[in-house]
Amino acid sequence: MQDIDYQACLQEIYEETKHLLGQGKVAEYIPALAEVDPNQYGIAIHTLDNKTYTIGDAETPFSIQSISKVFVFSMVFKAFGDKLWKRMGREPSGNSFNSLIQLELENGIPRNPFINAGALVSTDCLFSLSKNPLKDILNFVRSLSNNPKIIYDSVVANSEKDTGYRNAALVNFMKSFGNIEHDVDSVLNTYFHQCGLMMNCIDLAKAFCFLANKGINPFNGDSILTLSQAKRLNALMQTCGLYDESGEFAFSTGLPGKSGVGGGIVAVVPNLLSICVWSPALNKHGNSLIGMKALELFTTKTGISIF
Amino acid sequence: MQDIDYQACLQEIYEETKHLLGQGKVAEYIPALAEVDPNQYGIAIHTLDNKTYTIGDAETPFSIQSISKVFVFSMVFKAFGDKLWKRMGREPSGNSFNSLIQLELENGIPRNPFINAGALVSTDCLFSLSKNPLKDILNFVRSLSNNPKIIYDSVVANSEKDTGYRNAALVNFMKSFGNIEHDVDSVLNTYFHQCGLMMNCIDLAKAFCFLANKGINPFNGDSILTLSQAKRLNALMQTCGLYDESGEFAFSTGLPGKSGVGGGIVAVVPNLLSICVWSPALNKHGNSLIGMKALELFTTKTGISIF
Amino acid sequence: MQDIDYQACLQEIYEETKHLLGQGKVAEYIPALAEVDPNQYGIAIHTLDNKTYTIGDAETPFSIQSISKVFVFSMVFKAFGDKLWKRMGREPSGNSFNSLIQLELENGIPRNPFINAGALVSTDCLFSLSKNPLKDILNFVRSLSNNPKIIYDSVVANSEKDTGYRNAALVNFMKSFGNIEHDVDSVLNTYFHQCGLMMNCIDLAKAFCFLANKGINPFNGDSILTLSQAKRLNALMQTCGLYDESGEFAFSTGLPGKSGVGGGIVAVVPNLLSICVWSPALNKHGNSLIGMKALELFTTKTGISIF
Amino acid sequence: MQDIDYQACLQEIYEETKHLLGQGKVAEYIPALAEVDPNQYGIAIHTLDNKTYTIGDAETPFSIQSISKVFVFSMVFKAFGDKLWKRMGREPSGNSFNSLIQLELENGIPRNPFINAGALVSTDCLFSLSKNPLKDILNFVRSLSNNPKIIYDSVVANSEKDTGYRNAALVNFMKSFGNIEHDVDSVLNTYFHQCGLMMNCIDLAKAFCFLANKGINPFNGDSILTLSQAKRLNALMQTCGLYDESGEFAFSTGLPGKSGVGGGIVAVVPNLLSICVWSPALNKHGNSLIGMKALELFTTKTGISIF
Repeated sequence: MQDIDYQACLQEIYEETKHLLGQGKVAEYIPALAEVDPNQYGIAIHTLDNKTYTIGDAETPFSIQSISKVFVFSMVFKAFGDKLWKRMGREPSGNSFNSLIQLELENGIPRNPFINAGALVSTDCLFSLSKNPLKDILNFVRSLSNNPKIIYDSVVANSEKDTGYRNAALVNFMKSFGNIEHDVDSVLNTYFHQCGLMMNCIDLAKAFCFLANKGINPFNGDSILTLSQAKRLNALMQTCGLYDESGEFAFSTGLPGKSGVGGGIVAVVPNLLSICVWSPALNKHGNSLIGMKALELFTTKTGISIF
Repeated sequence: MQDIDYQACLQEIYEETKHLLGQGKVAEYIPALAEVDPNQYGIAIHTLDNKTYTIGDAETPFSIQSISKVFVFSMVFKAFGDKLWKRMGREPSGNSFNSLIQLELENGIPRNPFINAGALVSTDCLFSLSKNPLKDILNFVRSLSNNPKIIYDSVVANSEKDTGYRNAALVNFMKSFGNIEHDVDSVLNTYFHQCGLMMNCIDLAKAFCFLANKGINPFNGDSILTLSQAKRLNALMQTCGLYDESGEFAFSTGLPGKSGVGGGIVAVVPNLLSICVWSPALNKHGNSLIGMKALELFTTKTGISIF
Repeated sequence: MQDIDYQACLQEIYEETKHLLGQGKVAEYIPALAEVDPNQYGIAIHTLDNKTYTIGDAETPFSIQSISKVFVFSMVFKAFGDKLWKRMGREPSGNSFNSLIQLELENGIPRNPFINAGALVSTDCLFSLSKNPLKDILNFVRSLSNNPKIIYDSVVANSEKDTGYRNAALVNFMKSFGNIEHDVDSVLNTYFHQCGLMMNCIDLAKAFCFLANKGINPFNGDSILTLSQAKRLNALMQTCGLYDESGEFAFSTGLPGKSGVGGGIVAVVPNLLSICVWSPALNKHGNSLIGMKALELFTTKTGISIF
Repeated sequence: MQDIDYQACLQEIYEETKHLLGQGKVAEYIPALAEVDPNQYGIAIHTLDNKTYTIGDAETPFSIQSISKVFVFSMVFKAFGDKLWKRMGREPSGNSFNSLIQLELENGIPRNPFINAGALVSTDCLFSLSKNPLKDILNFVRSLSNNPKIIYDSVVANSEKDTGYRNAALVNFMKSFGNIEHDVDSVLNTYFHQCGLMMNCIDLAKAFCFLANKGINPFNGDSILTLSQAKRLNALMQTCGLYDESGEFAFSTGLPGKSGVGGGIVAVVPNLLSICVWSPALNKHGNSLIGMKALELFTTKTGISIF
């Protein structure tokens, strides 16, 4: 597939989807996100032979939100390995991303690392590894993206803090089951900050390349995960990465990926590339409306598929 | 029924049930309650003709816990009347007293005032009425019990604070649905204190007499609730007063009542009396094991029944 | 309360509520019921001193539907006593009358005898007692009503048969848990027939008098249930008799009662009387819209209350 | 990967896993399956270059059970295309394979085609296409397997009929929501027969090759599904194919697959081969205990992965 003209492909996708700008709605439950201009749209591809292709607003930083779950999970998966599975599962949730119902039925063990409850457990685990989780997350992400300028948007982080009652409910609820070890407020504060990381499409396409590259950071050769762990993390994203639209995304796109309510979706083509689409207006499942369509077109047009 | 020999009746009940001491378990999830001596057992009856009958440890103060839900609900029911039903329901929950499942399915509206979620809403309502809810609750309870010495046990209250993660989950969760108006920590603090009120069987038997007395405090003639409201509150206790054992209690005892995990159960015989049984060891539903049996015997022996 | 002028009271209730005719909707999921004229409305009271008071369409037979659950349950409660509670519970369901969710979570044991699943278990129990359940139910009801002309409406029964897929789901589901002993189709056929019993307000007011009369059929002195059983059945109706509006009915009316989607509601005043209201148009909970209002007025106007 | 020595690989897997014979339990809820000898174990691989590799009991026919869901779904997916998604979803269920809870919450629309409810809808759809569904299913499967001798085991089919109360509950329940168009008993009878299809590992490895082969039956060149449909069916198996162990299977094996309670699991390696493992003893999730392990070893040893 080395002879695909990615730039031409991005151009086509962009032309065929830009009429969808204006549909969908930006996330309204986080005040700082509600103010984002919905008429933004960018795509970036970064290939393992170190080429970057972009179109549209690919250099505009946005709030990565739940995409951060992959980064923090990678940090604790590297450190704790399969011990993690005592505190979270590996199954799709079949429910909305912040449901408490399943958590209650399953005694405080989240279904997987990519629903909010699971991500909060990952962040809690990080406190066992790190004296300064916020600094360590930032360094990890900067290294993966090969971009030392990535920052937290503290306005977004604090905006979540004020309205994040459901996440506060989740973390208190898991604490009542003994599945949160550290201080509730510290875990929440770190979680809200990681969600508030500001990255652009290029940063994210680069930052996910280690998952296409057998677990190795292509920019400095660091081993982030073992080959087996990297494959397994891809499988987890495939089954659980897009909330209760994970099945739909697998069905229409056929790639492992992760979305955030900031409007970003990143997908991985093993051994080849990573691609990030961003447009802030969301469909009713909380995924970027244009992003879903753009990635479906990407696999259709290129013939790239894992199946 | 004026010629029932209540003292002889209490004696019989006590003799027939005291062998059950040693069965059941004290509430363990609240540290300060876990240390209570389970071998305590008292009963008090207070009749509308102002006589008190007691047996056993009827003068030992204990933590009233969920029985406080009736007091705070009465305060806000008097003030807000039927407007309250926008924020809570009147139906049995069919679930454990602190379940989040139903709360999620019903968008943050608790089923009734006597599950934890409903009681937290009552406490939140009180903040709209009162500048000093803790003081006002104390005055209210002292007046109903005709006992100015009732106090909060702050050890118990703080003990709950440290472990009350599930209640913190409930209140944050309802706040995420917009059904908590005031500060989460203030509401929780007041709630933990009201649960930590220390009263004995005599206090509680007296304090519930207004519900047998058409809503009027028999000790000072104050109108606490209208006749209609008092009847309706009795109906609510009948259907929802004993967590997910409310049906069983109605079936075996046939009286409106309210229990707490401190081991107290209070029941009302309209137009006649109120009775409080206390023994700290609980059955698997969280109700006093001896209390359930003693109240069943009380209605069997006296023939008193609302049915 | 012997000097209440029941006839005048019925007249007042009727005048104050008849403007509600036209509101609500007849049950549409059973074809034969969907054709009933909604503009019918009757009330009958039968007192233990053997007087009958009526107004409106009190002599028009209607399909008693779920009210039949009380009759069949009484038959098996008399025969099996407390052994029944191995196969059904005594707690309010907190869910819609034909929900499978709770049944799944509780391994095929219905919450109480007055949800559909519980009533199907009662009917299944009857097959262990009787060679001809349909004949025995009919004789039982005729005797309680003192009316030998009561019949099944086989058009209604067959109408349910054709559309009763949810009841078929319930009985097959319980059978999969081992909680139905007899043939699925036979149990369903009997159940659909008992629901199709045609009785008028007078028949039903009379037929419930044994529950106001300590378990004794006032027309022939037969002991239907023991005093204790009769009280307990009243308590069950109080907490579970009106589907997921049981709490509301207890709250507004304060009497034990049972409703059916044919538009009938019967209530019991222990030691005094039974009252039946019928009007086919239902509120959103499946209870007679006018019936709910009329019974609330009845207790308000007469001051009759168990609380 | 053309130079993998599949025969040596099967030998290794077999040696490393055969000590697990004796662990797990055969399906007990279907009487005819409960009698199967658990100490059987076979594997077959069929490659797109038309070579077959086997080990152990690869020629012993067994009851394919839920694996039949893929065949019937393929038949109706070909015929109805995306219209199917009005009657079933594409999301993982997050619940046990025969749960009614989710079905009730989602108004009778099954989550995906590979839970029992979804498969019953597929079978119902087949009645709209075919005058003789049983004959057509058989012909379809024989053609895919290139084996005209495949038959239904009517003992198994009737065994399910007698005990299939939960499936009867599912189909009646969906009919109550209007999501079953044809006669309940006919749909169930066909469903029980398709589950009772007797095939061996070689048959199944061959029969799934069309999914590795862009939708084309490699034995006769028939187009079973379009390329896009075949990829999407693989994605569906990846996210939903192993009940509530789908995530675990994706995580450990990384291939699309489908299991049955008869002990078979089939997996697809796109563009390369299909592999079937069979051993009747199941883990607690209802999947072949040895099958799960053998397939994990297969991808580990060969390095084959879609990720």
